[in-house]
Amino acid sequence: MNRQNLIEAIKAKKSMLCVGLDVNPGLLPIGMNQTPEMVLEFNKAIIDATLPYTISYKLNSAFYESFGIAGWQVMAATFDYLQNKDVLVIADAKRGDIGNSSQQYAESFLKQLRADAITVAPYMGFDSVKPFLNIEHKWTILLGLTSNAGNEDFQLQKLANGKYLFEEVLTKAVEWGNPDNLMFVVGATQGDRFQQVRAIAKDHFLLVPGIGAQGGDLESTMEAGVINDYGLLINASRSIIFSSRRSDFAVKAGEAAKELQQQMESFIEKRHNHKTH
Amino acid sequence: MNRQNLIEAIKAKKSMLCVGLDVNPGLLPIGMNQTPEMVLEFNKAIIDATLPYTISYKLNSAFYESFGIAGWQVMAATFDYLQNKDVLVIADAKRGDIGNSSQQYAESFLKQLRADAITVAPYMGFDSVKPFLNIEHKWTILLGLTSNAGNEDFQLQKLANGKYLFEEVLTKAVEWGNPDNLMFVVGATQGDRFQQVRAIAKDHFLLVPGIGAQGGDLESTMEAGVINDYGLLINASRSIIFSSRRSDFAVKAGEAAKELQQQMESFIEKRHNHKTH
Repeated sequence: MNRQNLIEAIKAKKSMLCVGLDVNPGLLPIGMNQTPEMVLEFNKAIIDATLPYTISYKLNSAFYESFGIAGWQVMAATFDYLQNKDVLVIADAKRGDIGNSSQQYAESFLKQLRADAITVAPYMGFDSVKPFLNIEHKWTILLGLTSNAGNEDFQLQKLANGKYLFEEVLTKAVEWGNPDNLMFVVGATQGDRFQQVRAIAKDHFLLVPGIGAQGGDLESTMEAGVINDYGLLINASRSIIFSSRRSDFAVKAGEAAKELQQQMESFIEKRHNHKTH
Repeated sequence: MNRQNLIEAIKAKKSMLCVGLDVNPGLLPIGMNQTPEMVLEFNKAIIDATLPYTISYKLNSAFYESFGIAGWQVMAATFDYLQNKDVLVIADAKRGDIGNSSQQYAESFLKQLRADAITVAPYMGFDSVKPFLNIEHKWTILLGLTSNAGNEDFQLQKLANGKYLFEEVLTKAVEWGNPDNLMFVVGATQGDRFQQVRAIAKDHFLLVPGIGAQGGDLESTMEAGVINDYGLLINASRSIIFSSRRSDFAVKAGEAAKELQQQMESFIEKRHNHKTH
């Protein structure tokens, strides 16, 4: 899914919502067996219920790898199920290695599993990131400023050049890629930092985790991060997919997705009216 | 494998060699099918041939994931094959995510796949690293200063506090873990940086890639990084496992491993004599 398709999907659904399929088997609906097969059934039901309100899905590979081989099968089957649904499919894998190895990861996730995008960790520098950017018609989503407490350890360290480390990451990365193949992860809990991000990544899409369970506020996140082309994929995981642990889990997930979508719709329309009047 | 066992293995084999099973199927011996099954057979033959000279094996997950489900099976079977061989088994996975997800990765690699150690990327800070350190009797190997050209982008950035980023990573991490559960990746191509590393990580084992194919010099690496308890796992991958692409591939791999081990043995004995005389 390219940038233009993504923007059109946002316009059509009036949504910037990305649903995170971070399925902890221990949180499956009561009475559902905690097996890989049921995780796949769960994923399909959640996708069906949330699709009208959602322009992207994100699978965190950690939750699938924890099942070993069977988990890898569920991840592959879920990526298959997401094909041709006009959504941006993200492998939240946070990979990054020397070029030779990054190349293998890029091919696994972007070609074999057919994800549109993969999250990548920046610590090892340009030659660890380039192999992902080199895959045509795909996206690299580089960790910028994450939503966890540990972001203070390194990402928010001031460099001798006056920039924060996350600003240095963004500054270098916008030279390696472009707004058509590169996005950044910026946590919603970092509201006041969005200005710093947008000063560097003016036209790039941002993948924003941290809404809901992690405590970020949707309205202020949208205010702070939005650009003309929207430029935001706002992720919610647990607050949607585990809305209910009863047999109505899919219905409730759909409702939770719709609720976020409606907040996004009213923001988008307000902004549109503001611009045209 | 705990620190004491590791030190004893080094003493017994007079070796600090870690063999990297980074098996690119395209480089399998001529005539061998480039299938996951043959990668497993290749791995077993390499392990059998190199075991007398080796105290550790490292599997880079990128090469196995590139085969998808079948690759995950080969990785699991190789980890199985390495059990009870008195070697430190490393999952070179370079994972790191928010706590919830890092926890899943830690359990996948250290419990299910039964690796002794996993490599971890530091960018997301303490709460992304802690879940790995919390698994008892296992090792976290944190990226410090890697051997690739991209290390200049961020790892070798000077911070406002006067330290390089990689020094800040080491300084913080030695507070999170201890020499019994934490090692660092330090590239052999960084010879002159070992002093800076050892100023912070005095007693920690270092996993040192970059010998051979990546151009690092063994002798000067050992001189620069060794401590009383040895403190070095020196990795070679391609230069050992792809020594020959003919039917003598295992024999040649054994010879290449032995050659490195003998250089290590003579270094260890010289150093021992120097200390006792």
